[in-house]
Amino acid sequence: MRDPHVPPASLTPTRGVRVTRVTADGVSHTTDVAAAEEPLDVRLHGRSFAVIMRTPGEDRALAAGFLLSERVIRTADDIGAIEHCRHPDHTKAHHVVDVYLVGDAAARVPAMLDNRRQVIANSSCGVCGRATIDELRADIAPLADEWAVDVGVIRQLPGRLRARQSRFDETGGLHGAAVFAIDGALVASAEDVGRHNAVDKSIGALLMKEAGASDAVPGLLMVSGRVSFEIVQKAWLGGIPIVAAISAPTSLAIELAHEAGITLLGFVRDAGLNIYTHESRISGV
Amino acid sequence: MRDPHVPPASLTPTRGVRVTRVTADGVSHTTDVAAAEEPLDVRLHGRSFAVIMRTPGEDRALAAGFLLSERVIRTADDIGAIEHCRHPDHTKAHHVVDVYLVGDAAARVPAMLDNRRQVIANSSCGVCGRATIDELRADIAPLADEWAVDVGVIRQLPGRLRARQSRFDETGGLHGAAVFAIDGALVASAEDVGRHNAVDKSIGALLMKEAGASDAVPGLLMVSGRVSFEIVQKAWLGGIPIVAAISAPTSLAIELAHEAGITLLGFVRDAGLNIYTHESRISGV
Repeated sequence: MRDPHVPPASLTPTRGVRVTRVTADGVSHTTDVAAAEEPLDVRLHGRSFAVIMRTPGEDRALAAGFLLSERVIRTADDIGAIEHCRHPDHTKAHHVVDVYLVGDAAARVPAMLDNRRQVIANSSCGVCGRATIDELRADIAPLADEWAVDVGVIRQLPGRLRARQSRFDETGGLHGAAVFAIDGALVASAEDVGRHNAVDKSIGALLMKEAGASDAVPGLLMVSGRVSFEIVQKAWLGGIPIVAAISAPTSLAIELAHEAGITLLGFVRDAGLNIYTHESRISGV
Repeated sequence: MRDPHVPPASLTPTRGVRVTRVTADGVSHTTDVAAAEEPLDVRLHGRSFAVIMRTPGEDRALAAGFLLSERVIRTADDIGAIEHCRHPDHTKAHHVVDVYLVGDAAARVPAMLDNRRQVIANSSCGVCGRATIDELRADIAPLADEWAVDVGVIRQLPGRLRARQSRFDETGGLHGAAVFAIDGALVASAEDVGRHNAVDKSIGALLMKEAGASDAVPGLLMVSGRVSFEIVQKAWLGGIPIVAAISAPTSLAIELAHEAGITLLGFVRDAGLNIYTHESRISGV
């Protein structure tokens, strides 16, 4: 029997990933390190209270800080115990933290759980990792591999996205996202304090055929920052087969891109770019 | 009567803010531009479905993209109408989008709303802007102004936070947060793919007195990226009176810091820093 207090080797904050690195000097097949992203189930008195997409590690502190922010606890004195699930048969016990409260806080737990019941039911779509991947796989086919984009087109995208980020220039505080056709023509773009909102606005503009959104077929989604699980999920639901980012992808973003048939590109900058998945869509490398 | 289709002047994606700019050359009192952050209420058939913290603008596209991501709609054909609230007496009509679906999607609306009911009830704590500010104000006092920190201490914090971001060095994909004592000594720090998680882990480590967290009184929270409303909220609930960021604050973060008695610092870098609120806690400027 595995001691649930000894986390398995998979419970690391980073993951090794395979990557095709494209630079001016050529192409190399190598490995890189991605930030791990996994769902953590925070349970109150044995029942699910919230599922948080997080980097494994410091899970007990995360649960304590989260419960303070959610105003479930007011001080450390409200906490009776916080520990990883001890059930010996629970194969994902290291992704479950059990919290037991004491005193007045404990008395409030049943009502808080009843209030959260529907949150859990719904947050399984969007934040719950494997469960969501499994659900998506069940009713959305992986995106088809019908065409390829030249790497030269990809190299122009960061500049074209940046040219649309007029408010970032003013504030330094806004994420940008843009959808491009496979020839690199801009289809729609948006800025927002929220990265997910910028993506939702861009894809929503296509859907609504808003003024400014072109009729060209959307082929690539570019984001100004990093790529998490949810960004890849949005591209999949929007039918956009290439996702490119200025910065890094998470481990779960790469995993979902594999399954979705999505070509995932990271660190797309002047010096080159990384291809994480489905590289057959990128020609000229 | 105001035409609800003409947004008011306040519905801009950026806001002018007052700032004290501290550089090697001295101190100047000036104005800057911050990204606007405001809650948007997305309603389905007249009932609240979700409240999204967003930058005003492209609200209809945001609602459409969000509903696609949430799998409420599958195609544009599911949408009957998306428009800002037309109620002439609704003073925040420009922060409400009404969505009407058609066909099978319309038939699913009552069940979807019932499933979401509790989400709305709960998301009012953490994502609902004014309502949450008002709630917080009701039962948490602004933080007291008991001491000041020398600006020279502040200047050292970015380097000290950076030194704790070992996994960022590997992956380029993790946010960092750290809590410092008022003399600049590290109290607790954490890294995570989620910015809010990194803050929750740092504050949670204090609360739990986790190994590594010192007993010094926490005085400053430093984050590697930007500061949104929720980060300031977490500091307030954690009783930490100074929040410092490498990058920009949102409009609502500044507004909440004013009310919380929190000193908010942005763009804390080698070249200088910006003080947005309660600057009496910063000495030596």
